[in-house]
Amino acid sequence: MNMSTANTARLLITCEDKPGIVQAVSSFLYHHGANITALDQYATEAQGGRYFMRVEFELDSLQSRKDGLLQTFESNVATRYNMHWRLALVSDVKKVGLLVSKVDHALLELLWRHSRGGLPCEITKVVSNHDTLRTAVENFGIPFEVVPVTKENKREAYAKIDELMQGNDVLVLARYMQILDEEFVKKWEMKVINIHHSFLPAFVGANPYKQAYEKGVKLIGATAHYVTADLDQGPIIEQDVERVNHDFTVEQLRELGQDVERNVLARAVKWHLEDRIIVDGNKTVVFQ
Amino acid sequence: MNMSTANTARLLITCEDKPGIVQAVSSFLYHHGANITALDQYATEAQGGRYFMRVEFELDSLQSRKDGLLQTFESNVATRYNMHWRLALVSDVKKVGLLVSKVDHALLELLWRHSRGGLPCEITKVVSNHDTLRTAVENFGIPFEVVPVTKENKREAYAKIDELMQGNDVLVLARYMQILDEEFVKKWEMKVINIHHSFLPAFVGANPYKQAYEKGVKLIGATAHYVTADLDQGPIIEQDVERVNHDFTVEQLRELGQDVERNVLARAVKWHLEDRIIVDGNKTVVFQ
Amino acid sequence: MNMSTANTARLLITCEDKPGIVQAVSSFLYHHGANITALDQYATEAQGGRYFMRVEFELDSLQSRKDGLLQTFESNVATRYNMHWRLALVSDVKKVGLLVSKVDHALLELLWRHSRGGLPCEITKVVSNHDTLRTAVENFGIPFEVVPVTKENKREAYAKIDELMQGNDVLVLARYMQILDEEFVKKWEMKVINIHHSFLPAFVGANPYKQAYEKGVKLIGATAHYVTADLDQGPIIEQDVERVNHDFTVEQLRELGQDVERNVLARAVKWHLEDRIIVDGNKTVVFQ
Amino acid sequence: MNMSTANTARLLITCEDKPGIVQAVSSFLYHHGANITALDQYATEAQGGRYFMRVEFELDSLQSRKDGLLQTFESNVATRYNMHWRLALVSDVKKVGLLVSKVDHALLELLWRHSRGGLPCEITKVVSNHDTLRTAVENFGIPFEVVPVTKENKREAYAKIDELMQGNDVLVLARYMQILDEEFVKKWEMKVINIHHSFLPAFVGANPYKQAYEKGVKLIGATAHYVTADLDQGPIIEQDVERVNHDFTVEQLRELGQDVERNVLARAVKWHLEDRIIVDGNKTVVFQ
Repeated sequence: MNMSTANTARLLITCEDKPGIVQAVSSFLYHHGANITALDQYATEAQGGRYFMRVEFELDSLQSRKDGLLQTFESNVATRYNMHWRLALVSDVKKVGLLVSKVDHALLELLWRHSRGGLPCEITKVVSNHDTLRTAVENFGIPFEVVPVTKENKREAYAKIDELMQGNDVLVLARYMQILDEEFVKKWEMKVINIHHSFLPAFVGANPYKQAYEKGVKLIGATAHYVTADLDQGPIIEQDVERVNHDFTVEQLRELGQDVERNVLARAVKWHLEDRIIVDGNKTVVFQ
Repeated sequence: MNMSTANTARLLITCEDKPGIVQAVSSFLYHHGANITALDQYATEAQGGRYFMRVEFELDSLQSRKDGLLQTFESNVATRYNMHWRLALVSDVKKVGLLVSKVDHALLELLWRHSRGGLPCEITKVVSNHDTLRTAVENFGIPFEVVPVTKENKREAYAKIDELMQGNDVLVLARYMQILDEEFVKKWEMKVINIHHSFLPAFVGANPYKQAYEKGVKLIGATAHYVTADLDQGPIIEQDVERVNHDFTVEQLRELGQDVERNVLARAVKWHLEDRIIVDGNKTVVFQ
Repeated sequence: MNMSTANTARLLITCEDKPGIVQAVSSFLYHHGANITALDQYATEAQGGRYFMRVEFELDSLQSRKDGLLQTFESNVATRYNMHWRLALVSDVKKVGLLVSKVDHALLELLWRHSRGGLPCEITKVVSNHDTLRTAVENFGIPFEVVPVTKENKREAYAKIDELMQGNDVLVLARYMQILDEEFVKKWEMKVINIHHSFLPAFVGANPYKQAYEKGVKLIGATAHYVTADLDQGPIIEQDVERVNHDFTVEQLRELGQDVERNVLARAVKWHLEDRIIVDGNKTVVFQ
Repeated sequence: MNMSTANTARLLITCEDKPGIVQAVSSFLYHHGANITALDQYATEAQGGRYFMRVEFELDSLQSRKDGLLQTFESNVATRYNMHWRLALVSDVKKVGLLVSKVDHALLELLWRHSRGGLPCEITKVVSNHDTLRTAVENFGIPFEVVPVTKENKREAYAKIDELMQGNDVLVLARYMQILDEEFVKKWEMKVINIHHSFLPAFVGANPYKQAYEKGVKLIGATAHYVTADLDQGPIIEQDVERVNHDFTVEQLRELGQDVERNVLARAVKWHLEDRIIVDGNKTVVFQ
């Protein structure tokens, strides 16, 4: 991490849309000596709509001044606009836990991009309900743990996974073929990213490539989303598609689809790590 | 139409998959003096699967020899393989009737491409349930008729439309915002192409852009399909999507979506006119 | 135009990158009672790099207050940062002149989108070196003038075109197959948008589809750019491509390419009209 | 390999376009008991044009009957049409040698897809001019050899590489940053696939991402092609692009471009292995 990165932070703000917010935030930063390097905002249309903002800035001695900054911003700016906000320092490298079953493509894409410096995070461990991918994961020098999940032990299994994943900032389901325990989902609200192998809301649930084959669609897709209690219904982060035609078998749809899945998941995880996403009800605001 | 086009035909075949079909068809054509200019085939995987074939060929004096050719092919080849087949002469220009409501983009795209020679057909007339687009249509020199449709007159209205459309080979719903009468759908089975303004099977029914907005999808799409009794469930011919993001309003989704709709519909209609589509149950085989 | 649009303006700024610009601009607007509805910025990386900003805002009684605003901004903000800047009121509807030769697709796309409300401008006239498209243009109620151009009369012809186009804010070459007069290009610097029918910098000059065919490329493209003295070398505004394969003839490349051209040109013109483009040397910054 | 694959072959044919070729080939195969599972043909337009054909078929006891089949086809069919042709048995698994320098993304994509069964070949070895990627390659269980190349030893170096690569059917330059020796290129004519990190013919030569940055293009691309004596000018197999904008640095163009490169190269190599490519002068026919 170079000096510049060590002194870079992102401020994410949600509040009611009112005049003066940009002015208030940029003045605050300016008077503290910060240099704004990126600024994005978005307001929903309706009168009294919601307002979203992402500001990236550099500030000398950021780490030592962080606490003071947080306090002053809260009392001088955030309170006035009744903001829901957070400050993320680039130097606070996010910790990521991965969950996977037996299919490796989404997992390997993340491990590989991470090993090449393309994902700014620490991958702390991989937990699976099968031992299949142990060697593949351990080759990357990352701890691998197995927690079998059955109908009978579901509650205990997720208590175990929750314990193993403590300390992580975000979990990624890289084709983890289990419906999470409700309790677990609540604890990790908007902190679990899943890749679903269809263009949601088409083909919810099991075997989407088979569903796509039977429907005869001309494009297949993948969707990365935050996990909520409703299966495959959480806020969508990213989607993409590839063109197919009548002569694709289910197996060929799956093979091509895996390329879409890994790219879509990698982008979604990267945006999360770069603090580009604000959840807005059941939708996401993604500042690119 | 030049000589070559005047002597060009397409043979479309569906039958059970068995060895020797290519040989039988190509030998038949060769021995009649035809020159094969394009040949596509597709077989579903399963044992005893279905087989589909499209052959385009040139044959001197095709028009005068057509009837003999049909008879000989039926008795010498088709019967042996229990083929469902048809022969389409390029010189038999297809007649197309259009149905539209008030929104003009899909309709104008077709009229415009047709006027520039991009759609090999005769557009015989446009029928609408509103008078809104009369001038736009008549500027292209195409007859425009209004048939109002209400709950009360639905049966009579579609009887009237059916009468007006007699003689057409295919009908295109270029954003015709009415659910067709069942009787009418049966009469025109697999002869009505609709453009639905979503990536089906996502967002069936009314107001798909509003549905897409509320779901927060990151791509919006359009789907051209043959019309069946099940609303928005007929065999898909073509689909496409465009990337959007959180700050698109419903109106902006609609505006961008209209560009997708008109391209998707134009491609689907063109493929139909070029005899590239074979319907396979609730799916399509499209030979491109 | 509704009240909100009547009071909306865009401020476009280019200057050296220094801390405090966002703060200075947003404070200025805030203290004048403006509400910022969109804000985009971009800085080139290098130390002492260039900084670009686009701010869209609403301000009551904007039209009557415009002159005062311009003066105050210049003296209070722009001078301090040595800004190159301009203010564009949405209510000052831009005037657009079109130039075309014989091929109609790009022209019709613009006329059509304009007639449907998709291009916020007044199209004042179409000038062509041929009479071919007179009816098509006049059907849209837009004046059409012919100025023949030959080697011999080139200077006079462009003097005539310049005279005819006086009062326009921007000219669009919608497949105008002439190399402009140098004098003319200088007069209309960065005010002429051209559509080139290739993915520049590949296939500069004449007959790009033939060049693409001979090279055997697997994608064909189109490029909208500002016109400079160097043929096909001006700042690129927008590009797009479509997939092709070995069996496309030059004619088929051209047909598919025309769909790309009209979409690319329409986007570029729209962005120009919405004041989204800042020219940066031989490149463009496009705030979307 | 299952029974079906063991008995599957592909016949690739180039000849002058004449009537009767499909009939002749399909009759030959039929009378030998083969079942045609795929058939594609393409003819260049011009009179007396070239004709290209790919037929995939299954035949019992193919391996033992191969030699007889070759002889009979040559004397009964190929001679008559003066065909340039070859027969490829799926059971004759192709041997592939890889060349790489220091950048790993393209190489790893191939190794990874191969290890997951997505590339039907044997990867025999990797040769590099640097030791950098030894561990990465050996982790896949594939031999890695270093052959340093300098101006002085170029001839010897390529003689060494030629020796090391003996027995391979095709070589892939997975970002091998050296201009091959002319002698070497001749020996391996149309048997070396390269990935160039631009949308050719734009940005030939070194540092294409820097060239793209300076030109301000709105899409970046990658091109897989066969290597000929002319640098970056060989027959193009596949290309693709991704959208970028003004705020991409050279480094970000490179990062995004690497994703395009690895997908484009993987597709090109797969098509080569599946005998889908016929070289036609300086272009390719790719039967998909």
